[in-house]
Amino acid sequence: MTESATSPELYFEDLRVGHRYMSGRYAVSESQILAFAREFDPQPLHLDPVAARAGALGGLSASGWHTAAITMRLTADGPLHLAGGTVGLGAELRWHKPTRPGDVLHLESEIVELRVSRSNPERGIVRVRMETLTEAGELLQTLTATLLVPTRATQAKG
Amino acid sequence: MTESATSPELYFEDLRVGHRYMSGRYAVSESQILAFAREFDPQPLHLDPVAARAGALGGLSASGWHTAAITMRLTADGPLHLAGGTVGLGAELRWHKPTRPGDVLHLESEIVELRVSRSNPERGIVRVRMETLTEAGELLQTLTATLLVPTRATQAKG
Repeated sequence: MTESATSPELYFEDLRVGHRYMSGRYAVSESQILAFAREFDPQPLHLDPVAARAGALGGLSASGWHTAAITMRLTADGPLHLAGGTVGLGAELRWHKPTRPGDVLHLESEIVELRVSRSNPERGIVRVRMETLTEAGELLQTLTATLLVPTRATQAKG
Repeated sequence: MTESATSPELYFEDLRVGHRYMSGRYAVSESQILAFAREFDPQPLHLDPVAARAGALGGLSASGWHTAAITMRLTADGPLHLAGGTVGLGAELRWHKPTRPGDVLHLESEIVELRVSRSNPERGIVRVRMETLTEAGELLQTLTATLLVPTRATQAKG
């Protein structure tokens, strides 16, 4: 997380397919899981430890959208510091295992595709594959995000 | 939102491709946008109205992950009341326009695919396409969710 404060802003030209980035860590508590679920995903799976044990996920788990939101936080705080911010056009998500109370998450990200926007050649389109993992290395979520990244031509214009 | 309390739980056999569902409404305030961004997406685009005006989205906007989380909330409160809860395996997201302070969102959802799980024939796999719209009918987000839905065979076993 200290790295993001000092690393330079990256433009489209600075990126390469295969570049890899490691995030900081994010500890997920039961109270955070319950607070997110109360606001955005109020289902017994995510709200009620007793009912959740009998459910499809075999115990209290975070909403998948909570895991996705934490993934965004780790990205924002991480080393892939894009010029103009992380502006998403879309994403593909797979939830492999649920996030549990006490899990400590981190991301391992890799640039998998780079192309210039057809509608605006001053914009780059970047696809980044982000794996959200526990400290034990269990893969919880795969997220491939499609991001809009400015080229240096936009910088020249201010 | 009253409908979810009274509508029956739906099993895989109850669903049909082409079934459509309309959600309730969710008003998004600037303070909610800022609170979500502070916790999960701390970027000027979502945190600072002045800086956001100069940014790629032309003004303060909600994190796309906030729009996705609200979409989950509207689903949980809505009429598509699946047995065992809404258990997601994955999702494809497209953000067409950002959510702005004051927007009132609703979903129009449609079942687009139904198949039995290959690994467990007592489970159904359901794909639901959800459009997140403003009151003016602007399409903000398209989310196609892949959900796990029990068949009635699981119900018989209690």
